[in-house]
Amino acid sequence: MDENERTIEQTGEFGVIARLRQRLPQGAGVLLGPGDDAALVAASDRRVVATTDLLLEGIHFRRDWSSAYDIGRKAAAQNLADIAAMGARPTALLVALVAPGSLPVSWTDHLAAGLADEAAVVGASIVGGDTVRGDTITVAVTALGDLRGRKPVTRDGARPGDVIAVAGWLGWSAAGFALLSAGHVSPRALVEAHRRPEPPYDAGPAASDMGATAMIDVSDGLLADVGHIAEASRLRADIESARLDVPAQLREAARKVSVADPLTWVLGGGEDHALVATFPAGTRLPSRWRVIGAMSSGRGVTVDGATWSGPSGWRHFA
Amino acid sequence: MDENERTIEQTGEFGVIARLRQRLPQGAGVLLGPGDDAALVAASDRRVVATTDLLLEGIHFRRDWSSAYDIGRKAAAQNLADIAAMGARPTALLVALVAPGSLPVSWTDHLAAGLADEAAVVGASIVGGDTVRGDTITVAVTALGDLRGRKPVTRDGARPGDVIAVAGWLGWSAAGFALLSAGHVSPRALVEAHRRPEPPYDAGPAASDMGATAMIDVSDGLLADVGHIAEASRLRADIESARLDVPAQLREAARKVSVADPLTWVLGGGEDHALVATFPAGTRLPSRWRVIGAMSSGRGVTVDGATWSGPSGWRHFA
Repeated sequence: MDENERTIEQTGEFGVIARLRQRLPQGAGVLLGPGDDAALVAASDRRVVATTDLLLEGIHFRRDWSSAYDIGRKAAAQNLADIAAMGARPTALLVALVAPGSLPVSWTDHLAAGLADEAAVVGASIVGGDTVRGDTITVAVTALGDLRGRKPVTRDGARPGDVIAVAGWLGWSAAGFALLSAGHVSPRALVEAHRRPEPPYDAGPAASDMGATAMIDVSDGLLADVGHIAEASRLRADIESARLDVPAQLREAARKVSVADPLTWVLGGGEDHALVATFPAGTRLPSRWRVIGAMSSGRGVTVDGATWSGPSGWRHFA
Repeated sequence: MDENERTIEQTGEFGVIARLRQRLPQGAGVLLGPGDDAALVAASDRRVVATTDLLLEGIHFRRDWSSAYDIGRKAAAQNLADIAAMGARPTALLVALVAPGSLPVSWTDHLAAGLADEAAVVGASIVGGDTVRGDTITVAVTALGDLRGRKPVTRDGARPGDVIAVAGWLGWSAAGFALLSAGHVSPRALVEAHRRPEPPYDAGPAASDMGATAMIDVSDGLLADVGHIAEASRLRADIESARLDVPAQLREAARKVSVADPLTWVLGGGEDHALVATFPAGTRLPSRWRVIGAMSSGRGVTVDGATWSGPSGWRHFA
């Protein structure tokens, strides 16, 4: 029997782990990789940034829409983006996996390859994990990062007059989701953006270096996440919709699925993991950062002067 | 309606997270706690120890056997013990939770309280998390730790002639599991040991200070885990059963559930999270460490001179 056609149940927990370990190259910051009770990772400035997130089949991904490899990339990306949003560089991932015994081991191999390849984009490594048999595929990822002496960029530091700027894509993943939901597979760039987001990782530490006062990654949707900055900073965020890019692919997708205005994806769609940050007015921003508004005294979020009252992003339990 | 009787679905994801956050005191090593994209934790010697494990309802716990509080304590304990088994002190936990919308929020409150209280035993804090709605309650925990300049104690450093010693309980959790499976609730100490293990956390860093050459926490069972040290160190582990403590409660439990020899629980039971370490012969060990055998050239594990060939611990996928 071909080893790759064996199921997790046939291979056993230790076999699955041994296979995965072979597929996980270890980077320079890893002092001790997988295989012991715990891993050991460098934390060059005596601090470690840490975040955790989980993806559940049926809620965060569908196996008929995304390959195991893409699911791995996405699971890694959403956690690595959280590290970047603090102004830090990711160093390591730990992955806990629930998988049915009937799943082919080739599926977990591809998942691990996707996780490792996305981590490699930022020089991070998968240093540990756990696998348990269960009905629903669940991928819980923890990411660690290193600020390298930088001040962490939190959500609560914005000041009145700061500009709001965004790096990365907005609305592409939401449009891709709408297309897939309606049975379309093009525009391909949007469908691919849903399957495999491309967060602007480097922009996070760069924003910290440029004096960003607050930062967040867009996972709940632009307005919801800008709202988190406004709330934490006790200010109002004013967004100008004319400054938001609505590329031709988004307009084409809107026509295909009969959405009146693709701007709703740009304002409300999460999962692209763009970075939104506030900077003192007059900060010279490189072209990857587009100014989309400004902070002012008050509360909440406005779009073109009108108060925005929801929906407040993606509510898993609602 | 009483707030505590509301379900997760009624309270919503952000409500659940806000409630949990109130219940999570932050310790001295936490530079930035929950609520931002990521947390920031001290790593005093420029290195961080990290491990992840998950517990699934029906496999690792049953709600009719264990309270939410006890499940939280156990989920924390099994991860904190992995940190101790490297010779490190735990600093922080991150917790990803899958929970059905119909679950009362009081359940997740108690789970969080259990996690936080177990973390507090070692001075660690819960610094981050994620909650997602799903059918099967799943608790994925990542623990971070600080070696404070110590050399990590891995599995592969044992030398021929080293003594094998254990700190903590062996077989209590397995006996408790057998009792609960047969409908018994006493001896109470064993049932409680199954619900809420008490790993000897301090013994980990202390073992490192005494020159431990290898260490592991007993999660798969004593022989399986000593086998991991033997395999990694390319040696044989010889255990003397007469040196293993079989207290009266274990003998009473064995009679109750018609198990011929309670020693099988001591040799094969996991989940007490005792620590097993090897030390150079002649090391003066404090009384909490009991010598139970020695390492020699060869391979595998023997008990009283007879080769032990399994079962190789708890195989989740088998």
